[in-house]
Amino acid sequence: MADQYAQSGEDKRQAGIPAIRWEEPPEGPVLVLLDQTRLPAEEVELVCTDASALVEAIRSLAVRGAPLLGIAGAYGVALAAARGFDVEEAATVLAGARPTAVNLSLGVNRARAAYGAALAGGGEPVQGARAALAAARRLHREDAEASARMAGHGLALLDELLPGGGHRILTHCNTGSLVSGGEGTAFAVALAAHRAGRLRRLWVDETRPLLQGARLTAWEAARSGMAYTLLTDNAAGSLFAAGEVDAVLIGADRIAADGSVANKVGSYPLAVLARYHHVPFIVVAPVTTVDPHTANGAAIEVEQRPGSEVTEVTAPQVPVTGAGGGIPVAPLGTQAYNPAFDVTPPELVTAIVTEEGAVSPVTAEGLAELCARARPGTGA
Amino acid sequence: MADQYAQSGEDKRQAGIPAIRWEEPPEGPVLVLLDQTRLPAEEVELVCTDASALVEAIRSLAVRGAPLLGIAGAYGVALAAARGFDVEEAATVLAGARPTAVNLSLGVNRARAAYGAALAGGGEPVQGARAALAAARRLHREDAEASARMAGHGLALLDELLPGGGHRILTHCNTGSLVSGGEGTAFAVALAAHRAGRLRRLWVDETRPLLQGARLTAWEAARSGMAYTLLTDNAAGSLFAAGEVDAVLIGADRIAADGSVANKVGSYPLAVLARYHHVPFIVVAPVTTVDPHTANGAAIEVEQRPGSEVTEVTAPQVPVTGAGGGIPVAPLGTQAYNPAFDVTPPELVTAIVTEEGAVSPVTAEGLAELCARARPGTGA
Repeated sequence: MADQYAQSGEDKRQAGIPAIRWEEPPEGPVLVLLDQTRLPAEEVELVCTDASALVEAIRSLAVRGAPLLGIAGAYGVALAAARGFDVEEAATVLAGARPTAVNLSLGVNRARAAYGAALAGGGEPVQGARAALAAARRLHREDAEASARMAGHGLALLDELLPGGGHRILTHCNTGSLVSGGEGTAFAVALAAHRAGRLRRLWVDETRPLLQGARLTAWEAARSGMAYTLLTDNAAGSLFAAGEVDAVLIGADRIAADGSVANKVGSYPLAVLARYHHVPFIVVAPVTTVDPHTANGAAIEVEQRPGSEVTEVTAPQVPVTGAGGGIPVAPLGTQAYNPAFDVTPPELVTAIVTEEGAVSPVTAEGLAELCARARPGTGA
Repeated sequence: MADQYAQSGEDKRQAGIPAIRWEEPPEGPVLVLLDQTRLPAEEVELVCTDASALVEAIRSLAVRGAPLLGIAGAYGVALAAARGFDVEEAATVLAGARPTAVNLSLGVNRARAAYGAALAGGGEPVQGARAALAAARRLHREDAEASARMAGHGLALLDELLPGGGHRILTHCNTGSLVSGGEGTAFAVALAAHRAGRLRRLWVDETRPLLQGARLTAWEAARSGMAYTLLTDNAAGSLFAAGEVDAVLIGADRIAADGSVANKVGSYPLAVLARYHHVPFIVVAPVTTVDPHTANGAAIEVEQRPGSEVTEVTAPQVPVTGAGGGIPVAPLGTQAYNPAFDVTPPELVTAIVTEEGAVSPVTAEGLAELCARARPGTGA
């Protein structure tokens, strides 16, 4: 069950409502999410008391972004355990809530494994629940640390590729603190450049159909005091042609073993434009995003989302009149092609930056080496 | 002054309300436009009784599309003349209503010249008005004929480039009967392929920010019984990567003497994607779109439109809450980059198809030859 209440007031906004937090009120533990579908109009929290509420929040994109989905999945297992629900069942529905982000099932599995290990060691369910929560909290903390390290590696790479400074960076979708236990992935690098006085402009793709750039990245950029400009996704070509883009920085939802990158739809056209204009195309993602069990781009399952996201306009405050929850803009009965992600092959990626360092050029060997550094002894 | 009244009912819809028509009710002549900002939700006509109402309709995109703007401009001059307004003043404000489409000022100038010639020949203003109207009607008729000829040349080119048939065509923005005295430019070619049983699918880019693809092209495709699918502009990359696009067909707002093509923003990224995937990129436009006085792409003035088109969601039926007439989706104060057009260099254009035939490869000489064929003796 999910319940929600609005948070507002200058105090909260300046402090920043975290994208996710665990709370233990007298009624029992809950997972509290910042409802990202309501931003930037309202800062509303969504309180989940069981895994099915969290699954609904994941599917509706109230909580989203690869690293944060992993954290949410782990907390979801911990929540099921703490509230005495069937942990295996909860883990299964959580892991299957969205198919493309590998982090989600990784996070779920980490908490499930901790729970299972506690029980296998003779513990009671209450000890298992404690172990699952500890695993979720550890993942949350590790992700925050990974953000900081990605930002450092990413900024060093930018400075190396663009020695003149005054970076004009184009980004797509949303990759900041709303998707992470820390300051995010690609956005964290831009933020580090901003803090170092070396960001001249952040170009923010609006990111159709759900406008994560317009709604979320612009909101994060404004809060951070960055110089940013919003554009429709199809206007990026004009910026490249005018020489106004020094680098593209994006996140990733899944990286195959060969370095193929699944990310928000619209990333691949940017990679082709960047190549045509000799502009670096940089992917920033934690090592957990690399899936050694997915051999290449063709093996990545790309989630197809409802056509109503395209045929109807939805935004906070837009009254619902269409079947998809928005206002129809296309003729009734219009069929839409709406893949959530696209896949960029490694030859179009200048570098992949992780918390363990960057790999450039992007090769299967280089990636495997980074992964081995992050997970010593696992062979992956 | 503009007045509007709704047209509805199955009869009218099947007959098709024309995008523009001249009427002479007892109260005096009027220019009646189908208000394209209200499609596909409502078919509403806008009745203009003077040039300033028409200028407003042009700026708000109630009437739009390069060929139709030329026709509208010519009728606008005829309207000013017929109603006894200052013809020179009307011509000046009409020609300047939007800067990028060359057809607008060409149409205006044709009616103005006819008016001026009648007066110079000793005619009264009433004869001048009749001459201006005759010039506008001639332009209207010529454009319809040009549409039919472009469709023929375009289909022949498609069949030559794609001998297998079963064309899957990607298009951007709106180029059908809503922008033309006839069946349009690029859309007319797709329609000819459809009628010949050789169109497998029309992929329709939604065309942010104003969604001309979702609202208008989908509406025209549905009315014509074509197999069409809508997509966000940034999903085109996935279609190319999957080998689902056989050709790109777009219109043009202005073509420079060297073959550089100014068209709706988002055209240039498609050209780069098409080149990367070895897919033909075909521009369909009447010879009037070629401007011999614009040397190259750099000389084309690109209209910058209000940022609110990007920071706010607007659609028929969306209630107005923001300053730009829509609902804000980005944080207040967000700056947006919003060029209406982009410029594709000739080396990325496979062919330019006009009513006089196709030029491929696109060269200044080839274009000049086509133009000379259309305007013999003018040297342009």
